[in-house]
Amino acid sequence: MADQDAQSPVGIEPPALSVLRWDELPEGPVLVLLDQTRLPVEEVELVCTDVPALVRAIRALAVRGAPLLGIAGGYGVALAAARGYDVAEATGLLERARPTAVNLAYGVRRVARVYWAAVEKGLTAGQAAGAALAEARALHREDAAASGRMARFGLALLDELLPGGGHRLLTHCNTGALVSGGEGTAFAVALQSHRAGRLRRLWVDETRPLLQGARLTAYEAARNGMAYSLLTDNAAGSLFAAGEVDAVLIGADRIAADGSVANKVGSYPLAVLAKYHHVPFIVVAPTTTVDLDTADGEAIIVEQRPGREVTELTSPHMVSPGGEAGGLPVAPVGAPAYNPAFDITPPELVTAIVTEEGVISPVTGVGLAELCARSSQITIS
Amino acid sequence: MADQDAQSPVGIEPPALSVLRWDELPEGPVLVLLDQTRLPVEEVELVCTDVPALVRAIRALAVRGAPLLGIAGGYGVALAAARGYDVAEATGLLERARPTAVNLAYGVRRVARVYWAAVEKGLTAGQAAGAALAEARALHREDAAASGRMARFGLALLDELLPGGGHRLLTHCNTGALVSGGEGTAFAVALQSHRAGRLRRLWVDETRPLLQGARLTAYEAARNGMAYSLLTDNAAGSLFAAGEVDAVLIGADRIAADGSVANKVGSYPLAVLAKYHHVPFIVVAPTTTVDLDTADGEAIIVEQRPGREVTELTSPHMVSPGGEAGGLPVAPVGAPAYNPAFDITPPELVTAIVTEEGVISPVTGVGLAELCARSSQITIS
Repeated sequence: MADQDAQSPVGIEPPALSVLRWDELPEGPVLVLLDQTRLPVEEVELVCTDVPALVRAIRALAVRGAPLLGIAGGYGVALAAARGYDVAEATGLLERARPTAVNLAYGVRRVARVYWAAVEKGLTAGQAAGAALAEARALHREDAAASGRMARFGLALLDELLPGGGHRLLTHCNTGALVSGGEGTAFAVALQSHRAGRLRRLWVDETRPLLQGARLTAYEAARNGMAYSLLTDNAAGSLFAAGEVDAVLIGADRIAADGSVANKVGSYPLAVLAKYHHVPFIVVAPTTTVDLDTADGEAIIVEQRPGREVTELTSPHMVSPGGEAGGLPVAPVGAPAYNPAFDITPPELVTAIVTEEGVISPVTGVGLAELCARSSQITIS
Repeated sequence: MADQDAQSPVGIEPPALSVLRWDELPEGPVLVLLDQTRLPVEEVELVCTDVPALVRAIRALAVRGAPLLGIAGGYGVALAAARGYDVAEATGLLERARPTAVNLAYGVRRVARVYWAAVEKGLTAGQAAGAALAEARALHREDAAASGRMARFGLALLDELLPGGGHRLLTHCNTGALVSGGEGTAFAVALQSHRAGRLRRLWVDETRPLLQGARLTAYEAARNGMAYSLLTDNAAGSLFAAGEVDAVLIGADRIAADGSVANKVGSYPLAVLAKYHHVPFIVVAPTTTVDLDTADGEAIIVEQRPGREVTELTSPHMVSPGGEAGGLPVAPVGAPAYNPAFDITPPELVTAIVTEEGVISPVTGVGLAELCARSSQITIS
């Protein structure tokens, strides 16, 4: 394979990526975000002193990824409380910042509930704000812990499926520390394999149209000193044909009750290729991604995105500080485009789903429901 | 589907695309080329008054596509002869302009052979130049005729495979008038379907990394008023799953003796998807693409292209008049990339191969050899 390795000795870890942190400055608390629109060109931090600034950052995709949005939303409520802003208004603004991100609303409501419970108990504003911050931090910690559990379950699964060791893993989109309170989902499993000295190669799909693979996963792989190669989504087929892929690892945007997986567009073709080549196709996602109210893949509504994501090219070099993407046209003016944001992989093409509660394989509706019940028992207790 | 149609009434044809033409100017003959590096932004013509200018145009990909390169090479020899330049030197320069393009050397040698035969017969330089030009024109006409025959055979095949009519065809890369003396290969079949009023939709893969689908096929589809939609290569899977593809039509860079097809990277995943969804996968290519000296797919050497085609984005807006592509980085600096130019589809995944001599289905080595024998008999007669 024509590539150069960016591999560092196993055991030398880079400092943890600071994607999102709460900071107590002399002038008051702030939420500090890594501006993901500037990656991989530069690591720029955005300091949010109020909720409208955070909402702008969410809308501009400076902070993105379902679990991370939930955490950001939770801290947003805590920020409003700590700074003495109107918490009810802040909650509404944050919930509506991106209407399709279920985790965002979940994080916002969870922290807001704790805040109002404290107020109702007659605690002071400062104490209620403290309770809100503690809840946001708990959410952050839980997500990081879930990430760690998924990574360990995922590596154990790889060891079972690939007893020969020497993992050559193919991944799609971005599922690492940039989308999570911890080290992510599918990417965290690959990182665990790397740390265990078993990763031979991480194949990174560039992931058109928004190039999260080229921009973000390659950045995270390089940062962790992993042996990786970037490829166009078209080139994955050649790798399967050449026997260069031992397993596919992807995340999930939503998992229906029957085990159908909605994920970034391009996941389904990988599942079909994996099936044809008898390669395991593994989905890594927290149980919060499972939506038992959605019966099956047919019931998942696939978002159609603007055609200009296809007809124009954008690069981080062209993104203004406000996050507005400037595009260079490649297709004829007015070219009609079909641009679904994600696709649906039916359960019969999924070898296993790895969650923080354990692994389901084969993927069945009954198995999923049991796992989710276990997860909610833990949450309730 | 979220798109707008760019469909014109069937029967209103745009003027034929002038991709390459011989012109007799007062100051002498010239070869005029449509500069494909500027498409779809603008239709700019390059006027070549000598062979070094033509060689520069070939190297800069201003003129590209296997059959068209053969024709350009043939006219190049005729140009040298007509202008009184050293024909032997011109032949060498043209043959070496792009070493991997077999058709280029074929066209150059064929016209040079006729020129030298005329010289040996004792004809004047003017008469020998005339004979060379006549041969280049014959090559051009033959290629256009082959295109027409492939289009008719291809449409007949579609009618047989899809008796319900109403073709929704998916194509990859660029295979139209821009690569041919006529209307191309796979694209010519789609155009024939459009003219017959049977094309419901041409799905155009953008074709990363060089975006020939977005830049060139979309341009040709729009120009012909075809109902088309552009998509990222990732989105093709969703179309198959939704039952929105009736057949896949692709060209070929080389076909081995066993029927293995080398074509633009991304063709093989489409073949696997087509198989999984029971959709015909049709290859359209002239018999000159068949290489009986290459036993099978394993014997085809796949060119690895520079990683910067993946790690940087280019657009026609960034191409200098000299054809040098300026790129905008998207991946981290130094990101290793795997970038094969094409992939191999084994014969068992190919429903049919359509050539100017007829259709083979199922695809077998014996069938291919018979077709090629028929083609060379015609050439000899």
